[in-house]
Amino acid sequence: MRTVAFLGLGIMGAPMAVNLLRAGFDVVGYNRSRAKVDAFVAAGGRGADSIAEAVAGADVVVTMLPDSPDVRDVMFADDGVLAHTAAGALLVDCSTIRPDVAREVAESSAARGVRALDAPVSGGEQGAIDGKLSIMVGGADADFAAARPVLDAMGTTVVHVGPAGSGQTVKAANQLIVAGNIQLVAEAVVFLEAHGVDTDSAVRVLGGGLAGSKVLEVKGAGMTGRTFTPGFRAELHHKDLGILTSAARDAGTATPLGAVVAQLMGALVAQGHGELDHSALIKLVEQLSAPPSADTP
Amino acid sequence: MRTVAFLGLGIMGAPMAVNLLRAGFDVVGYNRSRAKVDAFVAAGGRGADSIAEAVAGADVVVTMLPDSPDVRDVMFADDGVLAHTAAGALLVDCSTIRPDVAREVAESSAARGVRALDAPVSGGEQGAIDGKLSIMVGGADADFAAARPVLDAMGTTVVHVGPAGSGQTVKAANQLIVAGNIQLVAEAVVFLEAHGVDTDSAVRVLGGGLAGSKVLEVKGAGMTGRTFTPGFRAELHHKDLGILTSAARDAGTATPLGAVVAQLMGALVAQGHGELDHSALIKLVEQLSAPPSADTP
Repeated sequence: MRTVAFLGLGIMGAPMAVNLLRAGFDVVGYNRSRAKVDAFVAAGGRGADSIAEAVAGADVVVTMLPDSPDVRDVMFADDGVLAHTAAGALLVDCSTIRPDVAREVAESSAARGVRALDAPVSGGEQGAIDGKLSIMVGGADADFAAARPVLDAMGTTVVHVGPAGSGQTVKAANQLIVAGNIQLVAEAVVFLEAHGVDTDSAVRVLGGGLAGSKVLEVKGAGMTGRTFTPGFRAELHHKDLGILTSAARDAGTATPLGAVVAQLMGALVAQGHGELDHSALIKLVEQLSAPPSADTP
Repeated sequence: MRTVAFLGLGIMGAPMAVNLLRAGFDVVGYNRSRAKVDAFVAAGGRGADSIAEAVAGADVVVTMLPDSPDVRDVMFADDGVLAHTAAGALLVDCSTIRPDVAREVAESSAARGVRALDAPVSGGEQGAIDGKLSIMVGGADADFAAARPVLDAMGTTVVHVGPAGSGQTVKAANQLIVAGNIQLVAEAVVFLEAHGVDTDSAVRVLGGGLAGSKVLEVKGAGMTGRTFTPGFRAELHHKDLGILTSAARDAGTATPLGAVVAQLMGALVAQGHGELDHSALIKLVEQLSAPPSADTP
């Protein structure tokens, strides 16, 4: 488990690959745009010109790609991962994709003697840079154990949550809770503003009780002050809530708040705000509400 | 500010009054049922047989009552607080009531030369016993400063959030966020169960990232294990979401997730589960969903 192929050197993938280098792995990086490969080589890694070249001789193949179709392409194409990875190697897909696609990857891999884990991450660019991601892992016990050194080089909360696809299922639940918590803070802030309440004081006292959350802590001040620099882009969260909606339908489970916030996130993106931080959900609550009170209610 | 009348010696009020005794205040307790007064006297307090007797000579009158009509009765009746409290005294209403009733109390008090603060609390029975409540205070700066020693004897996060009624407005926002966070965890847990995911591991990894919250920390295990011992009773949270709904209508603000969870909490109470902890919201999500998967999805 010394040689790692890393496919997808984007905002998240590049610092994750660098952390693997720092942990002593021999890392071969590949990305469709050659400039990102060059940057990785400059950071001390090895570069490849194709997926086939990257995965040849790799013990572990880590993928960090935008969406389900990208993962299917990279895995299943004639010039893709499964066509060129050696039997016995281990695939670790850190992309956030549909659980059913993750299971399809696991099954196709098994048919070729390749082991696979779905291992989506939470923690954002800063978490990736700091090697402090949360990683939710689906797959077999033995494969999780084998991947542990690679995962520990990228994250601090690394948890095996169940069989293939489970990591993606937990990530979908994560994105449900995060979107909902943001929307609830948005509703609370607009409500308090309309009543003329000092929202910075309110956020402080709300954070001290049962209403406290990581979202309130990390996003509260940005939301009261209306600064929406990402962070995490609304358009990506919109994609993730599509995964949640689809996976909840598949399982026959109701997500009443999830359904509402998925529509609101979609509306935010449709209004042209997909590039803003997901906390820009507060813009929709404002649109639906009276303007803030300037004086005592 | 040495003599305090304490009206309402219930589950929350009794330990709050005892903490005032411990802080060195001379506390006269009153409750409609004499047994609770006797218990307070046994704990070292003084007892009164009427509101008039309790508030005579009090520098501060603290009230801790179930709902808005109770507060109006106790404040405005002929034998109530305002008829018998000396000018210059300070009312501190710790009940959770409608912001407009809190403002009515403040205005009627001012007309009689009595100062008033709304000061609802968060933290539950244990927080009341430990003197570690969060207290959200609405009213004038000088009155907040004067009440500080009394408030500090009962809570640790004591924040002045604005003019009269603001404490209740922030408490309504608190109850919106808490109910919503519980419902989101309920949706996530049922979704994960249906997909055959190990929910205890999932709760652990969710808590480590942006989905982390006080609700997940305090209620997560009870919800995966389906234990609904209060805690905070659903019927009280239902009352509080009525206050939120009404106050949001008054201000003309939209609370899309708040509206949904208010209906769900109402349904839970209507089904006869008002005595359960508010985390029993997960029972409704179960009713709307397929049963949990026993095996790999």
